[in-house]
Amino acid sequence: MSMNSFGHLFRVTTWGESHGPALGATVDGCPPNVEINEAMLQKWLDLRKPGQNKYTTQRREADEVRILSGVFEGKTTGTPIQLMIENTDQRSKDYGDIVEKFRPGHADITYYQKYGIRDHRGGGRSSARETAARVAAGGIARAVLDILLPDLKIKGFMVQMGPHSIDRENFDWDQIDQNPFWTPDAISAKDWATYLDGLRKSGSSVGAIVEVVAQGAPAGLGAPVYAKLDTDLAAAMMSINAVKGVEIGEGMHAAVLTGEENADEIRMGSNGPEYTSNHAGGILGGISTGQDLVVRFAVKPTSSILTTRKTVSKAGDDTEIITKGRHDPCVGIRAVPVGEAMMACVILDHFLLHRGQVGTNQGKIG
Amino acid sequence: MSMNSFGHLFRVTTWGESHGPALGATVDGCPPNVEINEAMLQKWLDLRKPGQNKYTTQRREADEVRILSGVFEGKTTGTPIQLMIENTDQRSKDYGDIVEKFRPGHADITYYQKYGIRDHRGGGRSSARETAARVAAGGIARAVLDILLPDLKIKGFMVQMGPHSIDRENFDWDQIDQNPFWTPDAISAKDWATYLDGLRKSGSSVGAIVEVVAQGAPAGLGAPVYAKLDTDLAAAMMSINAVKGVEIGEGMHAAVLTGEENADEIRMGSNGPEYTSNHAGGILGGISTGQDLVVRFAVKPTSSILTTRKTVSKAGDDTEIITKGRHDPCVGIRAVPVGEAMMACVILDHFLLHRGQVGTNQGKIG
Amino acid sequence: MSMNSFGHLFRVTTWGESHGPALGATVDGCPPNVEINEAMLQKWLDLRKPGQNKYTTQRREADEVRILSGVFEGKTTGTPIQLMIENTDQRSKDYGDIVEKFRPGHADITYYQKYGIRDHRGGGRSSARETAARVAAGGIARAVLDILLPDLKIKGFMVQMGPHSIDRENFDWDQIDQNPFWTPDAISAKDWATYLDGLRKSGSSVGAIVEVVAQGAPAGLGAPVYAKLDTDLAAAMMSINAVKGVEIGEGMHAAVLTGEENADEIRMGSNGPEYTSNHAGGILGGISTGQDLVVRFAVKPTSSILTTRKTVSKAGDDTEIITKGRHDPCVGIRAVPVGEAMMACVILDHFLLHRGQVGTNQGKIG
Amino acid sequence: MSMNSFGHLFRVTTWGESHGPALGATVDGCPPNVEINEAMLQKWLDLRKPGQNKYTTQRREADEVRILSGVFEGKTTGTPIQLMIENTDQRSKDYGDIVEKFRPGHADITYYQKYGIRDHRGGGRSSARETAARVAAGGIARAVLDILLPDLKIKGFMVQMGPHSIDRENFDWDQIDQNPFWTPDAISAKDWATYLDGLRKSGSSVGAIVEVVAQGAPAGLGAPVYAKLDTDLAAAMMSINAVKGVEIGEGMHAAVLTGEENADEIRMGSNGPEYTSNHAGGILGGISTGQDLVVRFAVKPTSSILTTRKTVSKAGDDTEIITKGRHDPCVGIRAVPVGEAMMACVILDHFLLHRGQVGTNQGKIG
Repeated sequence: MSMNSFGHLFRVTTWGESHGPALGATVDGCPPNVEINEAMLQKWLDLRKPGQNKYTTQRREADEVRILSGVFEGKTTGTPIQLMIENTDQRSKDYGDIVEKFRPGHADITYYQKYGIRDHRGGGRSSARETAARVAAGGIARAVLDILLPDLKIKGFMVQMGPHSIDRENFDWDQIDQNPFWTPDAISAKDWATYLDGLRKSGSSVGAIVEVVAQGAPAGLGAPVYAKLDTDLAAAMMSINAVKGVEIGEGMHAAVLTGEENADEIRMGSNGPEYTSNHAGGILGGISTGQDLVVRFAVKPTSSILTTRKTVSKAGDDTEIITKGRHDPCVGIRAVPVGEAMMACVILDHFLLHRGQVGTNQGKIG
Repeated sequence: MSMNSFGHLFRVTTWGESHGPALGATVDGCPPNVEINEAMLQKWLDLRKPGQNKYTTQRREADEVRILSGVFEGKTTGTPIQLMIENTDQRSKDYGDIVEKFRPGHADITYYQKYGIRDHRGGGRSSARETAARVAAGGIARAVLDILLPDLKIKGFMVQMGPHSIDRENFDWDQIDQNPFWTPDAISAKDWATYLDGLRKSGSSVGAIVEVVAQGAPAGLGAPVYAKLDTDLAAAMMSINAVKGVEIGEGMHAAVLTGEENADEIRMGSNGPEYTSNHAGGILGGISTGQDLVVRFAVKPTSSILTTRKTVSKAGDDTEIITKGRHDPCVGIRAVPVGEAMMACVILDHFLLHRGQVGTNQGKIG
Repeated sequence: MSMNSFGHLFRVTTWGESHGPALGATVDGCPPNVEINEAMLQKWLDLRKPGQNKYTTQRREADEVRILSGVFEGKTTGTPIQLMIENTDQRSKDYGDIVEKFRPGHADITYYQKYGIRDHRGGGRSSARETAARVAAGGIARAVLDILLPDLKIKGFMVQMGPHSIDRENFDWDQIDQNPFWTPDAISAKDWATYLDGLRKSGSSVGAIVEVVAQGAPAGLGAPVYAKLDTDLAAAMMSINAVKGVEIGEGMHAAVLTGEENADEIRMGSNGPEYTSNHAGGILGGISTGQDLVVRFAVKPTSSILTTRKTVSKAGDDTEIITKGRHDPCVGIRAVPVGEAMMACVILDHFLLHRGQVGTNQGKIG
Repeated sequence: MSMNSFGHLFRVTTWGESHGPALGATVDGCPPNVEINEAMLQKWLDLRKPGQNKYTTQRREADEVRILSGVFEGKTTGTPIQLMIENTDQRSKDYGDIVEKFRPGHADITYYQKYGIRDHRGGGRSSARETAARVAAGGIARAVLDILLPDLKIKGFMVQMGPHSIDRENFDWDQIDQNPFWTPDAISAKDWATYLDGLRKSGSSVGAIVEVVAQGAPAGLGAPVYAKLDTDLAAAMMSINAVKGVEIGEGMHAAVLTGEENADEIRMGSNGPEYTSNHAGGILGGISTGQDLVVRFAVKPTSSILTTRKTVSKAGDDTEIITKGRHDPCVGIRAVPVGEAMMACVILDHFLLHRGQVGTNQGKIG
């Protein structure tokens, strides 16, 4: 039923819980003869890894990925690639306190209501640790894209933390990798550091907005009407833990625009049609235009905070809870590489789908 | 590849173009022995139907749905239900002007770039006429839900038109069906009428935000981690024409909240756990909590406007275009019943999925 | 859940019952820019059509196919193609006698047990009339294959009727279209005519074996390990009404062979590897070798016979039944074009899948 | 694209190669709260394990299965279950000889032609070692079925080895587990031992026919028309390595029967309808009748034999090859537990599908 799978032709199935022996991803449909090794994937995992700095959870996980299948002599074989990350720092004793209580804002209660079972170890399958498997799978997608779409660049960054947005005037691509928030605005980076320090010390948390941009994707990706590129991107991003909203291009703001303001005009450029603006976020009718693909998503604040909260127990009694343990004051930070990974998987998947159905006979303009 | 299908167990495949002989939906996986007839579906289609009032396109379509299979003596048989709506008012001559030019903001150009073919008749497959098929399929989902989840109520309404939001203080469920905008705020209804009249006369258009609420859905619907209820809702709504953003509960606004503000506290009620608020929009970890399911989506302004716009031709020449014809100044209005239909399909699908995997042994609290 | 769909990228969903208003197929994923018209599909339907000669049911159906979507100005657009065949000769009064009784050997009883509903009109969804939709969809697959794999030839024929097998010594491709049994053995054609006349007059029926061969399919089609070419062919053929066995190459007879006898040896030919024999039926490890693809399937005898049979009623009483009406003494005859259609769909589907995942960089030998 | 997945709701994805670090299965959609532990799965794996006796390959693999996810405190959680079997006895040096040559009858050549890559280590993904993962997954299906369908019994056995069939007069269920061939005929067991000794010593191999029977499956499983129970069983069995034919009930022999001989008559029994015979193999119209489900499949002889065979090299030169190494003279033997596992998975999958779509409101007769 694909409940833990995404993608059509490049199909990723993730598995594993926060505190089980291991977690990982089965990647089916990867093109053959692509160079892949563990170091290539580890590079991306290290970006997402917890314990990197004081702004992310202090849980220490090596997050070392192993390739168990599908790669022979350093190249993909076209058969399923199994990626495994062992959980080393499980410290499940931290969670002993919450065996009988549900943490508000977490999926403890809904998993219990659905399945009648309570895996109290750090959220079990609902933990954001699952996203490590996505990042590893995204590493494979990137390696394939480097060959099939060499001009493609995918970059994620934070554009808002709590009430503080970046100033687009300060946007600097090179700044993104130089601050712990992956923000393109150096001034925001400084302000956010102070802000988040305060939150962390008070045991609170805050939400964020992440933007992911893909430059260099060709026109023609996406398919009507339920495998639209934006549909699949929306699903991909909404499936990330704690995400509550997804936008393409203007997003929710499209509501306030008039037709004159919103529709991007077209002029003929040297390599085909060009647009005078990109309100559409690079997608019209679910199909890529060749412009930058622009996706944003909102991550809610971590629900694990050091304030007493009202809740109920499995037995049905009213009670209270404080969620101790090691948590991120702003999980949005660690969602940045996850969003990039999902973008890479979706673009590759649609490239393969397009190549399958249409081949290379796209319509040329001019 | 399911490019034109959605749903896991309750699976809807739509087909047809704006100006072909007919369009429709194939509904596979519908439970048997459910009373269905054309009048029951027509009721919902009539709500979406164009030409209802001066605020929607003046194209006149009977939009009469026929059931071609899957229903015997007025009851579903468990086999595929084919729904067909013939296109009667095709008037394709209106579109003769745009055979060689691409309309900015429309999918004309991307379909051509993808498929190398130009169905210039009113957008072809990319036309919002496709949503008539969704509404018909949604009517089937509703009939099944009336039996399986008799307490469920699904209602969509407009909460924003252009810069004008409703005032939640004025929220009145009974108001929704009494104005042409399906807004729960009677004052907004009046203001919007004036506003939209102006837009229509000037040949302009504007965006909108639609909210769809489902009351009475049980806890436990949705499945980790790529068939989450919010993931499937996001995909369902983003697949609707002109939608650029989707929100669950707080949506994009979750970014500005702290953990204390956002996580809904829990108290034990007479029928199980209750929540003191619903920032989550009724979904935690992708699984329903039993609270109201709250989804919002933004619809961009119609790109067909009476202002000259820059574009290019198939031959690759810079040119200009004015999109005449019959169009909606605010397509968000007609998206309301479509959003409701998608909500109905997704809830039914997840109910069946849950019943398949888990049966009826949900975890009880207390 | 795809219960009425098959194929991965070239995806066919059939719908409709024997005596409903219409039946048809939704074809999703068809490549664009392929010439398709109703006459091209009608050609194949006419071969399968009932009432052609005294050996097939005398039900008279025009079986005229209409294309409702996905084709514009005579060419496919890449969007779903809806094919509809109206049921004209419904004569449901013939079936009035069996409303309360289950016909032995038919699916009446199992459909009732599954769905709790009894569509007594000629088998409803379980009727072999459903295969008309497959033949129409197969016509589309053939038109696409004519472009993508111009050297491909697909031909089905009967190799056994009841106890009478063809003599492979008499095999003549040109004979196939010259007798009502689609058999390549002119002598069998004569013998079978006499044999079947006797059966028909006595109100009996008999089984058959059909073979379908595809010549000119390239090496490399099929994918491990559950989308193998033979796996998909087995599913495709077993899904045809009344089929009880499917064989690839040697089929069940492979059991009696030794390794020396069975493994086809390889020599280098002018255009790549060639095999000294084809016990494998053109498939190794689920992937095509470039040899002829050879599939056979057994069709059981029609269960509708003029002999009184023991059965039970819906009320649970022991009773007897004679199935009158218009039926085929050997339904295997009409299964020939259906098997061809399924072969065409499976080959095209795997060609598109291969093109999607692998592109055109197949391994060359020598 | 599900290339390495099977099942609709109970979905199994296998991964891994013969000589990679590990292989396994991802099981998605397993119902929660079912007791599962490694010992329960190991029991089934030990039956399939190589090196059990002189009739199976002498490769020695511990084949120890580990559960990496989806089970908490000994019970399934409803989330994906990852099963891993490490390859311990890889001895890849055995295969050094065939790096440049293709083994006739093996998938070496087709994998190379498809993917352009040659994993020469024991067949790579095409090795029958993949079936260990199926057996482990089948163990999970059995544990679930023990709860959901406690009366169900699944048993596989060999009915033919080379030219030697069992005598159905000698059929004894208790005999099956008492001989190395899983045959219900004690006399055949003796004869086959002598026969296979001879084959083994001469370095030859032979095919076989395996039958799998499920007793106690309820009526109503299976769905029209491409998710028929027999369609899915045919696909499941045909996907097993070396299988060339699949039969349901009478199978290919249905071709020689008349309608009178083939259609099973029905009488009312104390617990519902009963049949006077079971030519149908328990399936009518793709849906189970409640009778025994009977499936047979033919396994071709191992292509690895000690006779020099003609082949070609990657470079395209004619050459010869002898496949040394450790191989089974009759792989059909080890296919028995694999067939049982596939039967278990398919029945569970269809039970869940049925429960999802139809619930428990099946039609009762009488």
